[in-house]
Amino acid sequence: MQLTKDTNILIIGLGVMGGSYARALSKQGYRIRCITKDASDIAYALDEGMIEAGATEIREDWISEAELIVFALYPLTFISWMEENGHLLKKGTLITDVSGVKSGVISKIQALLPEGVEFISAHPMAGRERSGVAFSDDSVFLGANYIVVPTEKNTEEAILLCEELGRTLGFSRISRLSAKKHDSMIAFLSQLTHCIAVTLMNCNDSKDMEKYTGDSFRDLTRIAKINENMWSELFLLNKDALLAEMDAFAEEFGAFRKLLEDEDVEGMKEKMRASTAKRLKFDKPKGNILP
Amino acid sequence: MQLTKDTNILIIGLGVMGGSYARALSKQGYRIRCITKDASDIAYALDEGMIEAGATEIREDWISEAELIVFALYPLTFISWMEENGHLLKKGTLITDVSGVKSGVISKIQALLPEGVEFISAHPMAGRERSGVAFSDDSVFLGANYIVVPTEKNTEEAILLCEELGRTLGFSRISRLSAKKHDSMIAFLSQLTHCIAVTLMNCNDSKDMEKYTGDSFRDLTRIAKINENMWSELFLLNKDALLAEMDAFAEEFGAFRKLLEDEDVEGMKEKMRASTAKRLKFDKPKGNILP
Repeated sequence: MQLTKDTNILIIGLGVMGGSYARALSKQGYRIRCITKDASDIAYALDEGMIEAGATEIREDWISEAELIVFALYPLTFISWMEENGHLLKKGTLITDVSGVKSGVISKIQALLPEGVEFISAHPMAGRERSGVAFSDDSVFLGANYIVVPTEKNTEEAILLCEELGRTLGFSRISRLSAKKHDSMIAFLSQLTHCIAVTLMNCNDSKDMEKYTGDSFRDLTRIAKINENMWSELFLLNKDALLAEMDAFAEEFGAFRKLLEDEDVEGMKEKMRASTAKRLKFDKPKGNILP
Repeated sequence: MQLTKDTNILIIGLGVMGGSYARALSKQGYRIRCITKDASDIAYALDEGMIEAGATEIREDWISEAELIVFALYPLTFISWMEENGHLLKKGTLITDVSGVKSGVISKIQALLPEGVEFISAHPMAGRERSGVAFSDDSVFLGANYIVVPTEKNTEEAILLCEELGRTLGFSRISRLSAKKHDSMIAFLSQLTHCIAVTLMNCNDSKDMEKYTGDSFRDLTRIAKINENMWSELFLLNKDALLAEMDAFAEEFGAFRKLLEDEDVEGMKEKMRASTAKRLKFDKPKGNILP
């Protein structure tokens, strides 16, 4: 199977991510059908020219005609959908997702697949702070990472098509990771940072702090404005990896605290020199386009 | 004493902050003298028209002629300077500073003042990541806070002049805080955030993380590139207040960890809703100008 303008693509779930997929693909002439729960989201997407057709109910004909189905649902909703409707998928259909956690999702989905249906998991690493199709915006894919997460059950053909989908959406870097490596990377880079931001925001109740706030505090707490339904679900599905990262952070934080308590200035400076050197590698590539 | 274009102003220490003061004041016609350690910094400042005259050695005549002296030195350097040269200050001189911590500085400086010399402490909350006069830039004062930190030894006249200096420099909000309140605010908003950024950067040594980094992680670690000499000094001088904030953070972080370990989804959501609501108050005022 190749991704062409004639490929029958169905998106299930038209939120901010499903909407961004629809925008990116329809702009390039792909014809997209969509199943989602709110009629108003379909009306919006039709009006914006993002989809060719939409439905709020399960359309068995669309599901059986689809060659590629993108599940743009929260992970637990994706799993429930498959439990209820997985049997409707037809042999030869390729399905993919957008879940931000993998180990806890992939094994459950693979167990629910009918004969001849392949699931290739992917994580488009381009989050938005706002949810809903009205905030969909495919420009966020530019400069961002698209990670394909194959297992031993996947065919090379499906993996290549999934990578092609990532390129077509406009992502700048396409890579492959195992589910375990993906989840541990996400636990550190994304989930731990959100735990820290929420904690920092909640750990001091003094009044009037906002009057004196500078950019450092604002930067560290930007993501403390958080979609609690999505993130609590993602944390839970990646519990072990996240707890491990939280413990590593707490231990390092405790070590720094001890240096300060002991007035070990040289020790503190060493930590600061290490963080300065490490952080240089994380600077944003110029022009926001990765090679 | 009033701040006028004829006020004899001496800046001691021409780094990024002393340089920004010199730029802001000289642009408005104030004539600034400066004592600093590097001749090349004086040459640069003369070339840029930021100062009228500069010296690398103690100029007793300039010190005795000065009506207002701004010490733009690291706190411990400021204290050493006063120990060595404080006796040169003449009766009627007003001195001020730019230190980022107060309790540990003010009492030591006040003990070193000759009869008739008044010290009014201030904190210009406009940091830069780079140090040195070449990075001085008075535009960072726009939209920023200037905090005057009086004690019972200060006269209302000196406090008002210091506030006038802050306005003249271009700061958008001038306020007064006690040393204790200032230090606890700074421990939370500024020092704790730097401890967290350094820790986050140092707590995971996995390779290739930078390939997958998104904006959240970059935002939380921007200040992990840190001037280790200045910050270790500031941490040490504010040790008790910073340890208290670190402990409050660690406790809250541990509480969130427990919610995750217990799979208490409702508890996690509650923390996230609280952080979301609190963070809204910290959004940057539109246009970067505070009322």
